[in-house]
Amino acid sequence: MKKGVLLVNLGTPDAPQAPEVRRYLGQFLADQRVIDTPKIIWWPILHGIILRFRPRHSAALYRRIWTDQGSPLAIYTAQQAKQLQVLMPDTMVQSAMCYGQPAIDTALTAFQKQGVREITVIPMYPQYSQTTIGSIFDQVMAYYQQRPDVADLHFVRGFYQRPDYIQLLVTQLKQALQEQDYDQLIFSYHGIPQKYSDNGDPYAAECTATTEAVMAAVGDYPYVQTYQSKFGPAQWLLPATIDTLRQLPAQGRKKVLVITPSFVADCLETLQEIEIENKTAFLESGGVQFTYVHPLNGAADFTAVLKKIALNQK
Amino acid sequence: MKKGVLLVNLGTPDAPQAPEVRRYLGQFLADQRVIDTPKIIWWPILHGIILRFRPRHSAALYRRIWTDQGSPLAIYTAQQAKQLQVLMPDTMVQSAMCYGQPAIDTALTAFQKQGVREITVIPMYPQYSQTTIGSIFDQVMAYYQQRPDVADLHFVRGFYQRPDYIQLLVTQLKQALQEQDYDQLIFSYHGIPQKYSDNGDPYAAECTATTEAVMAAVGDYPYVQTYQSKFGPAQWLLPATIDTLRQLPAQGRKKVLVITPSFVADCLETLQEIEIENKTAFLESGGVQFTYVHPLNGAADFTAVLKKIALNQK
Repeated sequence: MKKGVLLVNLGTPDAPQAPEVRRYLGQFLADQRVIDTPKIIWWPILHGIILRFRPRHSAALYRRIWTDQGSPLAIYTAQQAKQLQVLMPDTMVQSAMCYGQPAIDTALTAFQKQGVREITVIPMYPQYSQTTIGSIFDQVMAYYQQRPDVADLHFVRGFYQRPDYIQLLVTQLKQALQEQDYDQLIFSYHGIPQKYSDNGDPYAAECTATTEAVMAAVGDYPYVQTYQSKFGPAQWLLPATIDTLRQLPAQGRKKVLVITPSFVADCLETLQEIEIENKTAFLESGGVQFTYVHPLNGAADFTAVLKKIALNQK
Repeated sequence: MKKGVLLVNLGTPDAPQAPEVRRYLGQFLADQRVIDTPKIIWWPILHGIILRFRPRHSAALYRRIWTDQGSPLAIYTAQQAKQLQVLMPDTMVQSAMCYGQPAIDTALTAFQKQGVREITVIPMYPQYSQTTIGSIFDQVMAYYQQRPDVADLHFVRGFYQRPDYIQLLVTQLKQALQEQDYDQLIFSYHGIPQKYSDNGDPYAAECTATTEAVMAAVGDYPYVQTYQSKFGPAQWLLPATIDTLRQLPAQGRKKVLVITPSFVADCLETLQEIEIENKTAFLESGGVQFTYVHPLNGAADFTAVLKKIALNQK
């Protein structure tokens, strides 16, 4: 039986313009795993307000991080797949996006056409949340539920507990700490609504486990775990990254090293939100040094970990 | 992360009486993977005719195969799980039924409660069909789609292509052929509607591949591949086992050895349909010797193959 590996990330608009961003946000924010508000309440808000005003604003933010080759998330995700393909020449490796292009359905159909019936799906999120990995799970399963033939399927439910993944973060931090001293390490994770967490989404516990595993190897250093990217009026996991960054200088912590372990590829939330918006807020609040440890992106040792995940090796 | 293995078979009524059989058939025949007739057409037939008359007849058949310990399929499936548990002491092994008890949902909830998040689901069908493995797939996925946390899931899409499984069948046949000569080997598989096959269900091709792999090792011996257990008026895969058995004696083939590679545990379709109904038809048509090779049931070497499947080993 031919084998396949599918790397799946969240998605990105096709272009940093309002129509493309509207299409992307429309798909993303219609996912009931992401926004669980009943449709009868959420649809008028989404279509009447959010998709009317937000795309223009978001498009302007996307333009700040866009490159000649396109969206950073799309570039890095494709690069990770390409590198993994080199390491696994007998396996068909593809990447896909939960929202936008290339779609999960398109990739699964390509496997089907090539006779690939043994597929490992690796969501590119180390920590599990229903809003990310759960959504990918639903899409993959919905694809097969409509079809007479299904795959021999290994669905990877995150990889935060893998020592080899933790070691990559440890190495990144230790290298940065060798170059300079900081007053504070900040582990900033993408947030989710507090209510989801209360209802059984294990995400927060897995973020904390990630932070603690990394710090166990980094050693005795002041650190804090925060959550970023809040959307909408509901309460999200706390503390908020930007609030923490605004408060730290007044506490005498003016040199910070920031890492975002829930991202494995640079995107709007890292390049714009962390490196521009949060950094600016920190420096304007009296901060002196703001260093950001970028996601693993195309690092060869991350591709090697992906290969071990694909092969189900420890 | 704690690991679990779930063996899933089709199901059985809880008792060989009409009310229990009605409940079981009602669940089984309501599955749209099994009967894809639109509900508006199928529901009146199922509830108005089939579930009114068939349960009493089926219950009488079940009583012929029932044992002091209960339904053979339930007994063997539980035994397979118990034996696998002994081989895999650090893994939580359970069995479940697609229809009836213990339900797939119940087993998955038990894994969840025990903190088991890495689960291999092994449908106890060597050859894939949407009506069997596809149905289990749907039930497993539907369970997680309603829940905030999903499992690290390996769904096994059949195992007909495994040399170690084929070898078990070869050994069974060779042992029988050492004891006696036969005019004809018969590979009788559970059938499906021809329409499903035409629409992309790969079942027939996998049955043929199984037969051919077995015969490649057994050697030059006359054999035929047939399908049993037809239900309803539609055309099913051909030739029908019972028609073949009725015709063979007139062709001078009066001693047959029958094997049913789509079953790994004895059940109504083997103990009643093959060993009573089909055998009687053959002998009444002039047949002289009818020997049935039983499914693998609790064979230790089959448990060893299940362990390798669970560990994703070749």
